[in-house]
Amino acid sequence: MTIDDQLRAHRLFLTDHLRKQTDFSRTDQNRGVPPPPLQKPAPPDSLRVSLPDFRQWQQAIGQTSLVEAIGRRESRRRFAEDKLALAELSFLLWATQGVRRVLGHGHALRNVPSAGARHSFETYLFIRNVTELTPGLYRYLPLEHELVHVRDVPDMGTALIRAAYGQKFVGRSAVTFVWACIPGRMEWRYGLTAHRVILLDAGHVCQNLYLACEAVGAGTCAVAAYDQAELDQLLGVDGEEEFAVYVAPVGKKE
Amino acid sequence: MTIDDQLRAHRLFLTDHLRKQTDFSRTDQNRGVPPPPLQKPAPPDSLRVSLPDFRQWQQAIGQTSLVEAIGRRESRRRFAEDKLALAELSFLLWATQGVRRVLGHGHALRNVPSAGARHSFETYLFIRNVTELTPGLYRYLPLEHELVHVRDVPDMGTALIRAAYGQKFVGRSAVTFVWACIPGRMEWRYGLTAHRVILLDAGHVCQNLYLACEAVGAGTCAVAAYDQAELDQLLGVDGEEEFAVYVAPVGKKE
Repeated sequence: MTIDDQLRAHRLFLTDHLRKQTDFSRTDQNRGVPPPPLQKPAPPDSLRVSLPDFRQWQQAIGQTSLVEAIGRRESRRRFAEDKLALAELSFLLWATQGVRRVLGHGHALRNVPSAGARHSFETYLFIRNVTELTPGLYRYLPLEHELVHVRDVPDMGTALIRAAYGQKFVGRSAVTFVWACIPGRMEWRYGLTAHRVILLDAGHVCQNLYLACEAVGAGTCAVAAYDQAELDQLLGVDGEEEFAVYVAPVGKKE
Repeated sequence: MTIDDQLRAHRLFLTDHLRKQTDFSRTDQNRGVPPPPLQKPAPPDSLRVSLPDFRQWQQAIGQTSLVEAIGRRESRRRFAEDKLALAELSFLLWATQGVRRVLGHGHALRNVPSAGARHSFETYLFIRNVTELTPGLYRYLPLEHELVHVRDVPDMGTALIRAAYGQKFVGRSAVTFVWACIPGRMEWRYGLTAHRVILLDAGHVCQNLYLACEAVGAGTCAVAAYDQAELDQLLGVDGEEEFAVYVAPVGKKE
């Protein structure tokens, strides 16, 4: 393919032309296949950490107005070495992927919108500098509002910087969010029209993180440029049924 | 291609594998091509409408906290017939695409983040029920914080419902936002890696609209399913250098 043909194909992916050619009677949902689980199961013997609930973190967060949060938000790449409090992290997770209500039939309402309420993400956290937590890789369990410890990551800062093609600020975050997508969750309902809305959804999630950071004296700068194979390997995901789609290092403002 | 091959190709589009194969020395930016304009020019003789500025709408908006806005947000498909005030619309536009500072070299900082500050969207508004405005199709001019009247749209509600494959609530909105993308703005810097981040960006924008609606007693439900050719024709865009990527009907809560 010439560059022009490739550009045309990519632009086509941004449009909704495909919907007209899609036979939705052939999706897994319409063929009666049970939906994938709402959240990736955690190994039964893994270490889990309860997160402060709404009432506990609400006091810590204060009353930043929506207008202030939007007006103050910047892409922040300079972080203080201050610790993020566990209550603050709990709030950031509530804002980005918190579950509001399980509806049954394999779907749930969360604090962010998702096409067909499919919510195809898992939230991985490279934790470096958060109160009450040993550094390492964790994953958020939105149904329980808990963290599960995935594994220790030796020399985490260096590993993250390398996976982000040398972007140094990624290694200086208190916590780096990585949203991994399980495309099958969205494909179950939408087949070949699933993928465009997955990226739109990732944008919803990340925008809430940007704004929520402003309410806790923190900041982030989303990163879409990373070594896919290396980051997937760091996460311990297979790169096919689950893979990283967006990265957001978070730290306290300088 | 089999369905499985197509699924694999689509999943690949969600990843950042392509970056490694991209020769960024060949992008327009690195070959010294001037950047596309920050905003699509308005015809010189067109009708323009000034929007209330920050000080004017701030009083109308009040102090909804970020936590309230996130916690109350729902995908709302039932709208009252009440008018949206022009000051409220001004706030929604500020929150979603308002320009904060022009940096020169064809880029500007806005109230939402965008990859490389490229901001590849134009905001079209199908206005049906907003104070001080005659119904019709308008476009937002973020550099001037003004609207430009594009054209009258006879039987607008019916036309929008048809373009949205019969989703009736779209025709009952006070105003329907349509974000059209000018892919060339992002391709100028990112070449073939431009398209994935355009969708992430559209998600950022739409999430701010969801939250901003909650601060003015309104609601929205994003629509990713629409007849691409029909909507592009309604907008009057060519479908190649500019096309719709996301739709959000807004109305007052019932």
